[in-house]
Amino acid sequence: MRVYLELAYDGTLYSGWQVQPNAITVQECLNDAVSDLFGCEILTQGASRTDAGVHARCNVACFDVDTRMPAEKISYALNQRLPEDIVVQRSMEVSADFHPRYGAKEKTYAYRILNRRFPDPLLSRYTTFFHQELDYEKMNRAGKCLIGQHDFTSFASVKSQTDSFVREIYDLAVSRDEGDVVTILVRGNGFLYNMVRIIAGTLLQVGCGLKEEEDVPKILSALDREQAGPTAPPQGLTLESIRYPGLELPQ
Amino acid sequence: MRVYLELAYDGTLYSGWQVQPNAITVQECLNDAVSDLFGCEILTQGASRTDAGVHARCNVACFDVDTRMPAEKISYALNQRLPEDIVVQRSMEVSADFHPRYGAKEKTYAYRILNRRFPDPLLSRYTTFFHQELDYEKMNRAGKCLIGQHDFTSFASVKSQTDSFVREIYDLAVSRDEGDVVTILVRGNGFLYNMVRIIAGTLLQVGCGLKEEEDVPKILSALDREQAGPTAPPQGLTLESIRYPGLELPQ
Repeated sequence: MRVYLELAYDGTLYSGWQVQPNAITVQECLNDAVSDLFGCEILTQGASRTDAGVHARCNVACFDVDTRMPAEKISYALNQRLPEDIVVQRSMEVSADFHPRYGAKEKTYAYRILNRRFPDPLLSRYTTFFHQELDYEKMNRAGKCLIGQHDFTSFASVKSQTDSFVREIYDLAVSRDEGDVVTILVRGNGFLYNMVRIIAGTLLQVGCGLKEEEDVPKILSALDREQAGPTAPPQGLTLESIRYPGLELPQ
Repeated sequence: MRVYLELAYDGTLYSGWQVQPNAITVQECLNDAVSDLFGCEILTQGASRTDAGVHARCNVACFDVDTRMPAEKISYALNQRLPEDIVVQRSMEVSADFHPRYGAKEKTYAYRILNRRFPDPLLSRYTTFFHQELDYEKMNRAGKCLIGQHDFTSFASVKSQTDSFVREIYDLAVSRDEGDVVTILVRGNGFLYNMVRIIAGTLLQVGCGLKEEEDVPKILSALDREQAGPTAPPQGLTLESIRYPGLELPQ
């Protein structure tokens, strides 16, 4: 059967999702746990290849296994084998044609910035610290021009390997909470390599006055990575959710 | 001059606030940073001796120094000398009779419990995980009987060294947020050793049905530590704030 997994992880200590030589990754830990549980080598496929230091409230992975263990119990067995900073939140059986990457129709990311005079050690693992005052309403307005289907070449790492730089952003909103955390919440059909972090780096420049609101549409249409702001640091980024149309999740 | 400091810290890696032999404490790190900054041995006094693993959004400390450095700049200089998980949020001059411990008239603690099926690695440093379903409204009602001035012997560690077990709780409320975090927020004129964690351990038993709401006033009047619930784990506890009447805080 094909097993679907939802995973939450603190990315602080990992070199990202994807297996690579000479570095510990989330996928490697998951492969090891699954292989140990079923006593044979099993490789998992992930939905989103999060970068080093990026967190997830819900990344999705799947694997194939021949077992009599009920799929919904696999989460408990895997959590006994995973390090504490990776936790399976749900496991269930899915059809054999389920593909975590190609089937994903909507992803939501949050980029969180602690905006005050001094860092808060209780938030530093999951936010980017920025001490200059940010005008989050300006950032929110500037971000709105990114909503829709566009060629996001300006907001992709030059290292991106892709056939097309066209993606669709369904929604982008910037808010500020009472604890001085400015959150950029962005939802779209998919994101290019470093895209959310480059959007965050650009909106940060707008928020502190280094760029104007009106610059953002110009950057978008320039199709030039050099025009956008820097890639914001990874620890502020969390993959919040992934949606698969037609997939029924039990309560 | 006497310098007042507000400190935030992640208590995960520390053996609590107070200096002790053969263990790294928050106060020791602060003493080292202050002594290094001014080039002589300086000892700090703290308001609240938080336990090993307990966090603070705002603990208060003070020290005496003869310096021409403006008091409000000391925060920046200390943060360059402190580990990343301890951050001075504010420094200012106070009168020579200011005492962080005796002058504190109100402290607020939050005890946070993540109540769901699986842990969340993004919250595990700052919450206690509890998978059995909690009736937070029942916990809230049960906690209300602790409000007021009482002898809290039943809710104090038997290791407490104190002349009086009488304390006043001004408010105690239990709430639940959308992220499955149940928070016990308690405000009082002072707390006995382990008092908030024993209250939390007792209310947890009420929340999952091991104790009844009506048991809590009986436990309070029994003046017997054995009657209350266990001491809840430290990582769920955060010292949120301390209030000094008459102390003027600049913006």
